[in-house]
Amino acid sequence: MNPTLLKKSAHLHGPVLIIGTGLLGASIGLGLRQRGIDVYLSDASPSAEAVATDIAAGSPLADAPADLAPELVVIGAPPDVCGSLVVEALRTYPRAVVTDVASVKTAVLDDVRAAAVDDDAVDVRRYLGSHPMAGRERSGAVAARAELFTSAPWVLCPHDDVDPHAYRTVTSLAVDLGGVVTTMEPAAHDEAVALVSHLPQVVSSLLASRLQDTPAASLSLAGQGLRDVTRIAASDPGLWVQILGANARHLVEPLEGMRADIDRLLHTLRAPTAPGARLDMAQLIAEGNAGQARIPGKHGGPAQQFAWLTVLVDDKPGQIALLLTEIGSLDVNLEDMRLGHSAGLPVGMVEIAVLPSKKQSLVDDLTGRGWKVVA
Amino acid sequence: MNPTLLKKSAHLHGPVLIIGTGLLGASIGLGLRQRGIDVYLSDASPSAEAVATDIAAGSPLADAPADLAPELVVIGAPPDVCGSLVVEALRTYPRAVVTDVASVKTAVLDDVRAAAVDDDAVDVRRYLGSHPMAGRERSGAVAARAELFTSAPWVLCPHDDVDPHAYRTVTSLAVDLGGVVTTMEPAAHDEAVALVSHLPQVVSSLLASRLQDTPAASLSLAGQGLRDVTRIAASDPGLWVQILGANARHLVEPLEGMRADIDRLLHTLRAPTAPGARLDMAQLIAEGNAGQARIPGKHGGPAQQFAWLTVLVDDKPGQIALLLTEIGSLDVNLEDMRLGHSAGLPVGMVEIAVLPSKKQSLVDDLTGRGWKVVA
Repeated sequence: MNPTLLKKSAHLHGPVLIIGTGLLGASIGLGLRQRGIDVYLSDASPSAEAVATDIAAGSPLADAPADLAPELVVIGAPPDVCGSLVVEALRTYPRAVVTDVASVKTAVLDDVRAAAVDDDAVDVRRYLGSHPMAGRERSGAVAARAELFTSAPWVLCPHDDVDPHAYRTVTSLAVDLGGVVTTMEPAAHDEAVALVSHLPQVVSSLLASRLQDTPAASLSLAGQGLRDVTRIAASDPGLWVQILGANARHLVEPLEGMRADIDRLLHTLRAPTAPGARLDMAQLIAEGNAGQARIPGKHGGPAQQFAWLTVLVDDKPGQIALLLTEIGSLDVNLEDMRLGHSAGLPVGMVEIAVLPSKKQSLVDDLTGRGWKVVA
Repeated sequence: MNPTLLKKSAHLHGPVLIIGTGLLGASIGLGLRQRGIDVYLSDASPSAEAVATDIAAGSPLADAPADLAPELVVIGAPPDVCGSLVVEALRTYPRAVVTDVASVKTAVLDDVRAAAVDDDAVDVRRYLGSHPMAGRERSGAVAARAELFTSAPWVLCPHDDVDPHAYRTVTSLAVDLGGVVTTMEPAAHDEAVALVSHLPQVVSSLLASRLQDTPAASLSLAGQGLRDVTRIAASDPGLWVQILGANARHLVEPLEGMRADIDRLLHTLRAPTAPGARLDMAQLIAEGNAGQARIPGKHGGPAQQFAWLTVLVDDKPGQIALLLTEIGSLDVNLEDMRLGHSAGLPVGMVEIAVLPSKKQSLVDDLTGRGWKVVA
């Protein structure tokens, strides 16, 4: 099978059945409904299903015709139960394509293959796992939104036996919802997300957990650095237990690497004036520089260095808008933006990133219009 | 000495001598010059001094009158040389108050006390260390700005022998530059910044260094989580070597704590289906939740949960401005804001935080005006 030949997708026709109506499942329902596709919803939790129905992500499965033959079944359940729900869907709907959106892919495929050994109804050719890279710190249908997948990577993880029709159907789902389709082997996917998604979660949680007994006076010195590093530590333990458990094998190696680096650093910090200690510490920070510089920038393009400037504004309604209106009227595109968190005074600092070629004229123009700009 | 009695500060009169004209030293010079205070500058590096002079942060020390008697000497040098420069300033200017702005305080005070033992000219009563919590990823006078300290905590670290006049003078410096003055013992300060500033830097660098050999296809799956956790990994190795070296003793304990947690997690990940494994993983994430929730919010107030909503905008000049203009016209204050980084499509997602009481009406109003809002 040549994946490039299969990437052409038609639109989905439906109906689509979504089993598991959390954040991802309900968001998929909302997006498909907006495109006029019939969606049925089912969740092991009646209240979760009711919330998804209330926000118009689809109709309850109980209201579906008895001979419902979905074009596509989407399993929106967490990793623990995902495999068995895929198997059940393949059995129940013998003509449907089945996908899932769990953030770990090898374990689900293993479950399906294991069930297929003794049961011809579990037709692995109709299953294609996928993973839209679109999470939030909040979970559940209450946080769902049709645009959740817009412009985000949506990874398809084909196995050797996947049917071209299944490939086209799942591609259509991703494309219809605005995702950017990429393809990876399941194991390569799991290894990748261990490093770019699961390890950052672990690290953020480990750091934040150090703050449980920190005196409030110490925490009052916290700056944007600490806030950024710990933001995702607010994530849901229930979901992350399943993700970490399902991808445990790929997390061990990078985590062992980090532990070895910590051991090296501890050795250095215990004798910070010993020969070579300074070099060790500089190397740690420099290696971080090198890794950080490789992370791609906005819109999936190569990492790009923007030029930053800072503008002081009063922290009251309309000031930032006024500033951005001026910037827009100068025909400069805002590449990134950050609001400075200040302590105790009603002044905001707006840090603005623009293309380097635009910076100097923007500084001049804003200053000329009376803004307090620091380049 | 009762610190509360001493917090009343008069304005500085000057002249002020700044030794070490990097980011902090040059920013202090700029701020004081804007307030009409005479500033002289000196740096071991002639080019660093020249840059600071060029941006009008002060005049070269070589141009000062021979009988220069500064009211205040500010040492803006990194931790390594800070102590000896404080000692030298106390000797050279027998009537000046001397402060420094290094991010580690115990080591500097130790250096001064050691030098004072044999030399009456090293009058420790005239020295009061301080630490403005206002760094940037960029360093040097080129990144300096007069407003760097506005609304940021500025920690004074008094010792038992500090003179009330020195206390008032350094307080005046911090207040004149817009800082929010707080007071901490030097050791308590060093312990606090180890946890809220230095450990986050180490953790961010350790994580980012794992990405040095990651395939580009894997990195293309990076989301906002990874970007946030690794942002400060772009920091300057030269400066951080000195900070980590000077505060090594306070970093060992929290880093050992993290390593113990990693060992516990590795044990769990190697046998993720063993009894208790799930509980261990859930506990790690839940402890992170608890620590993260304790970090104070904007303006130094208690941690506050804002209500977030997301608006889809075209990624072209003026769109975000237009949106914020509408929000301002509805008299709603923007508490925080985040631009969504998307991959491959020219659509931006603006996440906006407002007071919870303002959210529903804002969603309704914006939707009514034609914006694509997801609450």
